[in-house]
Amino acid sequence: MPLSPEQQAEIDDQRSNPQQTLRAVSEGLEARLYTAEPVLDHGFVRVIDYMGDDAAICQAARVSYGRGTKSVSNDEGLIRYLMRHWHSTPFEMCEIKLHVKLPIFVARQWIRHRTANVNEYSARYSILDREFYIPAPEHLAAQSTTNNQGRGDTLTGAEAERVLEILKTDAGRAYDSYETMISQDGQAGLARELARMNLPANIYTQWYWKTDLHNLLHFLRLRADAHAQYEIRAYADVICEMVRDWVPAAYRAFEDYRLGGATLSSTALDCIRRMLNGEEVTQETSGMSKGEWREFRAAIAPTE
Amino acid sequence: MPLSPEQQAEIDDQRSNPQQTLRAVSEGLEARLYTAEPVLDHGFVRVIDYMGDDAAICQAARVSYGRGTKSVSNDEGLIRYLMRHWHSTPFEMCEIKLHVKLPIFVARQWIRHRTANVNEYSARYSILDREFYIPAPEHLAAQSTTNNQGRGDTLTGAEAERVLEILKTDAGRAYDSYETMISQDGQAGLARELARMNLPANIYTQWYWKTDLHNLLHFLRLRADAHAQYEIRAYADVICEMVRDWVPAAYRAFEDYRLGGATLSSTALDCIRRMLNGEEVTQETSGMSKGEWREFRAAIAPTE
Amino acid sequence: MPLSPEQQAEIDDQRSNPQQTLRAVSEGLEARLYTAEPVLDHGFVRVIDYMGDDAAICQAARVSYGRGTKSVSNDEGLIRYLMRHWHSTPFEMCEIKLHVKLPIFVARQWIRHRTANVNEYSARYSILDREFYIPAPEHLAAQSTTNNQGRGDTLTGAEAERVLEILKTDAGRAYDSYETMISQDGQAGLARELARMNLPANIYTQWYWKTDLHNLLHFLRLRADAHAQYEIRAYADVICEMVRDWVPAAYRAFEDYRLGGATLSSTALDCIRRMLNGEEVTQETSGMSKGEWREFRAAIAPTE
Amino acid sequence: MPLSPEQQAEIDDQRSNPQQTLRAVSEGLEARLYTAEPVLDHGFVRVIDYMGDDAAICQAARVSYGRGTKSVSNDEGLIRYLMRHWHSTPFEMCEIKLHVKLPIFVARQWIRHRTANVNEYSARYSILDREFYIPAPEHLAAQSTTNNQGRGDTLTGAEAERVLEILKTDAGRAYDSYETMISQDGQAGLARELARMNLPANIYTQWYWKTDLHNLLHFLRLRADAHAQYEIRAYADVICEMVRDWVPAAYRAFEDYRLGGATLSSTALDCIRRMLNGEEVTQETSGMSKGEWREFRAAIAPTE
Repeated sequence: MPLSPEQQAEIDDQRSNPQQTLRAVSEGLEARLYTAEPVLDHGFVRVIDYMGDDAAICQAARVSYGRGTKSVSNDEGLIRYLMRHWHSTPFEMCEIKLHVKLPIFVARQWIRHRTANVNEYSARYSILDREFYIPAPEHLAAQSTTNNQGRGDTLTGAEAERVLEILKTDAGRAYDSYETMISQDGQAGLARELARMNLPANIYTQWYWKTDLHNLLHFLRLRADAHAQYEIRAYADVICEMVRDWVPAAYRAFEDYRLGGATLSSTALDCIRRMLNGEEVTQETSGMSKGEWREFRAAIAPTE
Repeated sequence: MPLSPEQQAEIDDQRSNPQQTLRAVSEGLEARLYTAEPVLDHGFVRVIDYMGDDAAICQAARVSYGRGTKSVSNDEGLIRYLMRHWHSTPFEMCEIKLHVKLPIFVARQWIRHRTANVNEYSARYSILDREFYIPAPEHLAAQSTTNNQGRGDTLTGAEAERVLEILKTDAGRAYDSYETMISQDGQAGLARELARMNLPANIYTQWYWKTDLHNLLHFLRLRADAHAQYEIRAYADVICEMVRDWVPAAYRAFEDYRLGGATLSSTALDCIRRMLNGEEVTQETSGMSKGEWREFRAAIAPTE
Repeated sequence: MPLSPEQQAEIDDQRSNPQQTLRAVSEGLEARLYTAEPVLDHGFVRVIDYMGDDAAICQAARVSYGRGTKSVSNDEGLIRYLMRHWHSTPFEMCEIKLHVKLPIFVARQWIRHRTANVNEYSARYSILDREFYIPAPEHLAAQSTTNNQGRGDTLTGAEAERVLEILKTDAGRAYDSYETMISQDGQAGLARELARMNLPANIYTQWYWKTDLHNLLHFLRLRADAHAQYEIRAYADVICEMVRDWVPAAYRAFEDYRLGGATLSSTALDCIRRMLNGEEVTQETSGMSKGEWREFRAAIAPTE
Repeated sequence: MPLSPEQQAEIDDQRSNPQQTLRAVSEGLEARLYTAEPVLDHGFVRVIDYMGDDAAICQAARVSYGRGTKSVSNDEGLIRYLMRHWHSTPFEMCEIKLHVKLPIFVARQWIRHRTANVNEYSARYSILDREFYIPAPEHLAAQSTTNNQGRGDTLTGAEAERVLEILKTDAGRAYDSYETMISQDGQAGLARELARMNLPANIYTQWYWKTDLHNLLHFLRLRADAHAQYEIRAYADVICEMVRDWVPAAYRAFEDYRLGGATLSSTALDCIRRMLNGEEVTQETSGMSKGEWREFRAAIAPTE
């Protein structure tokens, strides 16, 4: 349960006081504002503010086209055209600000997306809470035996229990030590900026994270992907739902062209031509490496 | 008169339809939304959307400080502290989107500020209007005789008349040629993307320009400065007024620390120490070059 | 002929003085250093400096993989893997600095690529040369009748002659006026920063432009594309040759995955599955708009 | 001792094989290439590659000024002028690539500087080494009693011993657990991407970090500052030495205008005017808050 009664009371207060604005309003996102969406065992994502909607994307695009716009007759069609042709600037005209609570090892992946604004809780200045991410048993995955950067089957039985026990015990002990070191009870107390170095990467931090829709979709394409680590994907999945409610037409185009789409190489396109021509193409005759061929087959495989 | 009746009608329509929102609202900027503020002879700036207010800056800063915040007792003091210590990330949490109509030579300076989102009217796609910037007589400045990158006195008399005549005639002729070349009346018509190359840099273009408050203040510090070219400064001055109404506390801090402040070198600080000690310091004994000394004297000169 | 004897002498001098370095060296690019490659009628591109080579891309990628790297056996395979999976950071480890002379209307498109460093010739500070881009007759294209943002057939006969005459005459006159206005012969002389506004967008400017390989390839994908305006494509094509000599393996991967590749939507991938299954798919049954269908057919059409 | 014999052998090899180049060469930085400069107990910084030198800064600036340059007579003067007037683009024309080994809590501060390219060792893919930062006794600082974000006196005696003992024991135990969890000896072995969450923030990671000189100087101004956490300052100090050898004139200007300089507010400049006029100004009459006044006094205080 990620929210304390105080936090819930603050959210209720923020949600009870609508004001008038002349700005573009997204009804779908207003309904979500401030509410914390739980992620993992103690994390959350909540929308703090936003700018723009589907119409704002089109409005910006039409500035470019001026009086000349006529080929694209409606907003959804225009948004699909922009997405298909990688016209990213109109999507940059929408902005969102999220409050996220997340484990530090997830934060370290997340921060690699540089085109965003961040204010993170400072462990130099303040004391971190005793909250650690402990995976649910169904996410306790073994190391993949075929892919260095991947997960295999789920651990079970005694091995799973031992891992959970280790994670809990070590986190608790590290936090006990942290408290012992910073305590000013009968001693000077170690500087917070030093004591935090004893805390493991599954401790929770939080930040305000603000980005534009183009960069957000790029983040989601990479982090809602099956190859992303499960823990960051859990956040990306929740944000996808928010984007769907915020800019529904843009999200539909994103699903079709990015999440469900694939970039095929010149070699791959040539293989498709040969296959449509009736030729039997194999990895050996494809001109692709084994890895590429496997990915190519997956891209055009029947989806159940 | 920069606005057509159609444009004014559209603005009136946008301003007549307030909606409810749970987001932070800046009353000062709501009063300005959509209204075009005239700049130069045919240009304008108008606010299309915004995100955040003074409180949002503090809210983001307090995420960083967590429960530890107590040293800065109020919002204005916190904002001054952040500005003084170059803590830029909380200011990045506010965003603004402007619609600007401006001459191309101004646009070329403006676009050098890279951390912004832009959708510009496309002269590949659409036809530019017959609108050119012609300086008002009081801004018809001579080349400075002491500074390559500066203006001297205002031109007067026959020379001023001749310059205005040239600018008007050449612009008109260039636009006539543009129309002649793209005309599809009895001929194929040159491609718009080619014909535009005949148009001079004082023709007006327009764009949507979106940036965060930190980068906007950086833009304003450079472009509202006395050394900036008058024509871009005219836009910066108008935007300063908008920022003042949007985030009054941030703007006051900006005025004190940036617009009215100065960065002094180690050498300059040392001169101040010597002068406060009663020493008579001259350029020769200051350790500064002539240019530096002149700038230093100006920074600490009495202001009338 | 874009280079003056003085410029050629400077290049010869720079090329005659090799020094020792312990850095990675790209033989292919060393052979090109400083030499100006002509583009359009008066423009050029020349490499001023560079950092890194194909091996530097792999070296950076292997920092990430540490001792765990074993799945990708050689450098070319690793580079293909990185390109295929949009791992952009290793490509960012290479950097190039170009000196480019180009018409202002091309510069205005170019500068929209924000992740780059630029120092442009200042027409506030200095006087521009009398050099204008006048298209070669074979690039004097008519406006497309089907695509607002495109070219149709080449203009011919009297219409072509008239257009060339207009472009030359107007440019000459605008430059004469520029000289008249800034002249300090018997008059004060208009400020350079003002007088330049009379010059058309086909006048040449120049800049130093520095970017990393990832962003350069993104630039090339958009600007070496058939939909880019011919004039900027002419620069992109020349830079492609430079990149080929600089990082041959990366360039080959770029050609296969980006220049020759295509991003297919979920809908398009589904159509391919249906077609491979023997179904006759038409635009009507495809789920695509007419425009999408046309682009899809082009992507999988036989290439001659 | 941060370097293994294998690493030293690799460095020796890289340093023994100079090649010819036509590019700008910085003798000072060539002498440092590849050599690891130790930082903290197991960390290092080493230069892997660079582009440009002091002359490259001037060359880029002179592109802007064209034939008009005459006011600044020499390179050092030009560099000082550029630094004083915040002309950042010429400094962006130099680039450096560093290989850094650093504790994760330092990496988390470092990565907030967004305008840089990074490839970090992947703990999803590879196994981290058993190397933890344990502060030297003289850097075992107590929490400041006056400043939440600061250090007080150094811990001594039993308290210091207890802290060191805790840090060593907890790190060792966390790493033992990490090894236990990922072991594939008689069990499946937890995925590396999960097991790493048990490791504390003082474990070492490493990365390639590439940035331009302007952004590097900004990083150094903030991180070589007395208010920066000691551990990141240790890295910044070492990099300062490298920059001094690379671009000596730019570094001297940076020392004078940035490291040793101060930005004074309009209010502060006014106080200086009053003081130079013989007025006795106190905090109460200054118009500044207590904090501002303290900082102002420090800026103009005699330096011993």
